Amino acid sequence: MKRIAAFTLLGGVLLMPDLSPSLSAQPAFVNTLMPQPAHLNVGSGALAWNTTVTVGVPHFRDQRLEGGLERTLEQMERKTGVPRQREIGNSSTATLVVDVDGAGDAVQSFEEDESYSLTVSATDVKLHAATVVGAMRGLTTLTQLVQTDGKEFFVPAVQIEDTPRFRWRGLMIDAGRHFEPVEVIKRNLDAMAAVKLNVFHWHLTEDQGFRIESKLYPRLTGVGSDGLYYTQDEAREIVAYARARGIRVVPEFDMPGHTRSWLVGYPELSSDPGPYTIRREFGVEQVAMDPTKESTYEFIDAFIGEMAAIFPDAYLHLGGDETPGTQWKNNPRVVEFMHSHHFTNTEELQTYFSQRVLAIAKKHGKHMVGWDEILNPALPTDAIIHSWRGAKSLYDAAQRGYQGILSQPYYLDHMKSTEEYYLADPLPANTTLTAEQGKLVLGGEACMWGEHVNELSIDSRIWPRTAAIAERFWSPASTRDVDDMYRRLWAESLRIEAVAGTTHLMHEGAALRELAGTENIDALRVFSSYLQPVPFGERYRGQHTSQLTSLDNLIDAVRPDPPSRHAMTVLVRDLLKQPGTNNPARAELNRIFQSWISAAPVIEDQMNHSPLLAVARPRVEQMAKLGQTGQQALGYLAGKKKAPAGWQKKNLAEIEAARKSQALVLFTFIDPLEQMVKAVK
Amino acid sequence: MKRIAAFTLLGGVLLMPDLSPSLSAQPAFVNTLMPQPAHLNVGSGALAWNTTVTVGVPHFRDQRLEGGLERTLEQMERKTGVPRQREIGNSSTATLVVDVDGAGDAVQSFEEDESYSLTVSATDVKLHAATVVGAMRGLTTLTQLVQTDGKEFFVPAVQIEDTPRFRWRGLMIDAGRHFEPVEVIKRNLDAMAAVKLNVFHWHLTEDQGFRIESKLYPRLTGVGSDGLYYTQDEAREIVAYARARGIRVVPEFDMPGHTRSWLVGYPELSSDPGPYTIRREFGVEQVAMDPTKESTYEFIDAFIGEMAAIFPDAYLHLGGDETPGTQWKNNPRVVEFMHSHHFTNTEELQTYFSQRVLAIAKKHGKHMVGWDEILNPALPTDAIIHSWRGAKSLYDAAQRGYQGILSQPYYLDHMKSTEEYYLADPLPANTTLTAEQGKLVLGGEACMWGEHVNELSIDSRIWPRTAAIAERFWSPASTRDVDDMYRRLWAESLRIEAVAGTTHLMHEGAALRELAGTENIDALRVFSSYLQPVPFGERYRGQHTSQLTSLDNLIDAVRPDPPSRHAMTVLVRDLLKQPGTNNPARAELNRIFQSWISAAPVIEDQMNHSPLLAVARPRVEQMAKLGQTGQQALGYLAGKKKAPAGWQKKNLAEIEAARKSQALVLFTFIDPLEQMVKAVK
Repeated sequence: MKRIAAFTLLGGVLLMPDLSPSLSAQPAFVNTLMPQPAHLNVGSGALAWNTTVTVGVPHFRDQRLEGGLERTLEQMERKTGVPRQREIGNSSTATLVVDVDGAGDAVQSFEEDESYSLTVSATDVKLHAATVVGAMRGLTTLTQLVQTDGKEFFVPAVQIEDTPRFRWRGLMIDAGRHFEPVEVIKRNLDAMAAVKLNVFHWHLTEDQGFRIESKLYPRLTGVGSDGLYYTQDEAREIVAYARARGIRVVPEFDMPGHTRSWLVGYPELSSDPGPYTIRREFGVEQVAMDPTKESTYEFIDAFIGEMAAIFPDAYLHLGGDETPGTQWKNNPRVVEFMHSHHFTNTEELQTYFSQRVLAIAKKHGKHMVGWDEILNPALPTDAIIHSWRGAKSLYDAAQRGYQGILSQPYYLDHMKSTEEYYLADPLPANTTLTAEQGKLVLGGEACMWGEHVNELSIDSRIWPRTAAIAERFWSPASTRDVDDMYRRLWAESLRIEAVAGTTHLMHEGAALRELAGTENIDALRVFSSYLQPVPFGERYRGQHTSQLTSLDNLIDAVRPDPPSRHAMTVLVRDLLKQPGTNNPARAELNRIFQSWISAAPVIEDQMNHSPLLAVARPRVEQMAKLGQTGQQALGYLAGKKKAPAGWQKKNLAEIEAARKSQALVLFTFIDPLEQMVKAVK
Repeated sequence: MKRIAAFTLLGGVLLMPDLSPSLSAQPAFVNTLMPQPAHLNVGSGALAWNTTVTVGVPHFRDQRLEGGLERTLEQMERKTGVPRQREIGNSSTATLVVDVDGAGDAVQSFEEDESYSLTVSATDVKLHAATVVGAMRGLTTLTQLVQTDGKEFFVPAVQIEDTPRFRWRGLMIDAGRHFEPVEVIKRNLDAMAAVKLNVFHWHLTEDQGFRIESKLYPRLTGVGSDGLYYTQDEAREIVAYARARGIRVVPEFDMPGHTRSWLVGYPELSSDPGPYTIRREFGVEQVAMDPTKESTYEFIDAFIGEMAAIFPDAYLHLGGDETPGTQWKNNPRVVEFMHSHHFTNTEELQTYFSQRVLAIAKKHGKHMVGWDEILNPALPTDAIIHSWRGAKSLYDAAQRGYQGILSQPYYLDHMKSTEEYYLADPLPANTTLTAEQGKLVLGGEACMWGEHVNELSIDSRIWPRTAAIAERFWSPASTRDVDDMYRRLWAESLRIEAVAGTTHLMHEGAALRELAGTENIDALRVFSSYLQPVPFGERYRGQHTSQLTSLDNLIDAVRPDPPSRHAMTVLVRDLLKQPGTNNPARAELNRIFQSWISAAPVIEDQMNHSPLLAVARPRVEQMAKLGQTGQQALGYLAGKKKAPAGWQKKNLAEIEAARKSQALVLFTFIDPLEQMVKAVK
């Protein structure tokens, strides 16, 4: 500990509001925390993380806390190479003291207290939390604080008082359209914990597959899953794994629509006799459960009872979206039922269904979450509205006294940039909701729909973008600096890879090797790092995708919003501040443009041997051409030579053409390149 | 199918020995098969792999065959992007006809018939095998045959008659010293199947951890595993997963030595009362089971009975290695037992133990495999000798009528080059064994010991080197062309990544990102691609490793025998054939040397921020310096300028110094660089 012996002792006091930055000594604190804590004061000095570190849990402890602590110490060990303390004593004078008041909720609720205080001085770390979940949040922050001066690792002195802004911070994974194996779910739960998300919404049933074992109705997976489903033991294992990380599991059994896979084994659930097959196409399905038969509710009752025993959460997500009612309208018996109940349209029939199902859920001790279609005057206010069609439904619901969660701006398959997701706020500053209504906005969920992802690509579609969404849900509303977010995002992305073992960075290389049929993918990496996938709709329409489409194209390899997009934006912003000087952005941009030009012939040669790559040949040619455009623009911007007449117009037209997708991929640099060309006088 | 319509029909005949290469038409067959089949004739033309391909299984079929066929079609789909046939009919005129005589062994034995015939013509594929395992071997070959002309995918016309040279082709994974999760085992089983290995030897118990649940003796894992073990359900799942791929699972319960983890919960198994803790150090342990107590055998009897119900294979591996007998010699009761039984040394006591354990195994219907220490005159000949201390013990055993398998040359942690493993033959051409004795050599096993691997790094230590070992075990003894092996190895390495999802290529990047703390690892990749880990012993001694050592160093990132080693050897070989001319090797070598020089400052800067990387700073400086040496040598070899006096001597000395390990990594290019410098007149 010698190198920090002279640093100021911060002391064990939990709140030190008078900590002045002017007291800070070397090494300086580099804030890469994500999400940002509610309150942070930087102290003076730092705690060296070495073999002398001891750990004490003086008050409450349970298996969950010990597990969380063990994972933390393992992460610290891996990061620093310093063997971890294996003994966790009860000393309140250990280097790391974890002081917890109690276990928290027996079944985690959205009222769980997740707050914590973390005080790091030059001699120790004091973590205090009311609950084990709060303590785990603080431990996560601790792992994010560790840094190095190049010789040793240390934790800079800080005082953090932290608590989440929203109580429902979720990630939805659709395992229906493409199945995701248990290990995919587990590593994503680890990644969620790394950014303090607390709800795993597990979309388990879809037209394209029924993914959870029912012992009462074995044909649900028996003929409705292609053999790809979670056993009940596996589901319990996931629930336990999530709970160990302070994450709730809210399972979704979507009904009455999105249920064709149920009907394969149990056609009697619908109003038409069938037979039904697993749906391979995507999009809204016409068939649905029959809401007029008592046997439908008996089935649902037994099924929900079975599921309620597996999933302890107080909430079940029961879907309710995209039920066009076509099948109902075509069935005289259903039409007759509607008449006799004075329903004037199928929406009212669906409301009837919702109420029946809600009563069943209640009988099994569960509240209901549903997609925003379920909102109607008859709905009891303990239901939660999950807004997917727009924030308006969320605010309408709040004004009518319903709690709600927002997902519409957080659809990951829309392939938006991280900053777009980041700046979308469930409760923006200009909200018209009253303070009381605002409290009904519980939070939000990032949604990873399953049409175009498989176990290989899914991580790269979720991470790191979801880390920024997690910050939106946790951190103060005022935390909105995009540049700073990206700086921290790249650090967090690496941490998630190391801590959770997600494949969001590894997948690209593996996919490129598979496409190119060689390990030599340096040139191809240049290309792919300036590409991103087209949004869901464009791929769906362009490729006519179904569940049977092989996800082995270039679009599956490239990452949404890769680092190049924001980096180019910043470089061109810097360049255009002083376009005529030799600022560092000029050299860097020139290097980038040259890399496009140099990579192109190598890639084109590889395309000669790969039909799946070769479809992007025009895109490579464009990249090389635009590299030349960029270099020319740099030259003209230097002011030594004037651009010839028509140069700007011609090149802007080419840039505009390159803005369009080709081979289902988009360039990441179109806007900044366009700005450069426009800036040429 | 139009592009191949004019090709010659090969026909459905199984043997066409008169196929002449002169008949072959475009596209040419590129042989990347690994392992090479016993007999291959190249035909004329090729079968286009497109949506018109149909599949038929006209005779025998079972779930295992259908599973293997489904995996094959999935791999073909992923490779080609062509959606797979979902219906598997029974037509004998389908494009792909899989004709199997029967299921094969109920429990796969080493007598299982794995042979197959595969005939590809321009219009169809006919696969015939006596057993389902044989059919799966043929399907694996089919997936390796698919290639592309850059526009379409096709299977070139070939006639293959294939059967393995050795019947026991294994990979051992030590899950004792470091635990390996179920998904690691599964993906390695997939990789094994890809190269036709047929025995997974699962080393389940060690001083450092007991890894298989016993319901009779729950403290074995309860206090002997750190909570890291396979449940019985998981073990059964692995056995089923392996069987589905034609792989036997031979579990190892090492005894009487290597048993300290057993003693933590059951100290009464030893001759000293304990207490015992899980061992963290590596190397030979002094404690062992007590062979003199009847209660020891009662315990083993019950335990083996429990395990026999989980592992159906006819063989159990019961270890028997490295039992120094120290504890026995120090116990008067044991010494007295030895006296009364007229044992003159502890080896004889161990023989007594072996015989007792063998009788127990027999009682439970099992034969025994043991490490070569178990070989003694009293051993019945149904035991298999597993040779780890040298081939001599294998041949001694064969001469005395014992069957044996060889592992001594195939220790993966010795970090030898692929070609060294490849050229080591269990039954070399100059063997002194008679033909009859030679038949007792059943094959061999690659051994992945667990001291220095965890779930992140293990794949990269096993693959792709084990693919070449698999070829040694399967292919004719005459298949020994090292250059051709490497050419096919790099293709197979990519196939294994794509088919099995192993991380042997991805791990390096993830580990470098973690070490460098950035995604920008291009320069670091240049460095790491010319490095390899030191052998086991050097790391063990140099780093004083134990189970608690964090495996997060540069040595854990770099790959054994990466492509650079053989590539540099070939380039320098080519260069030195005509050193004065402008041959392509010159330009390529110059580019390589320049990459070392250019990468060095970037890496050194990154080292300023990474203590775990910074230890290799001298190695980076050497790389840059040797890059200059290489460029100078290229210049002198061109003959335009003469090397100054002393240049060669000085540089050879520097190369010799760089041959030594530093930061536990070795350069891959020392020999060829030395040859270049020596060639300078």
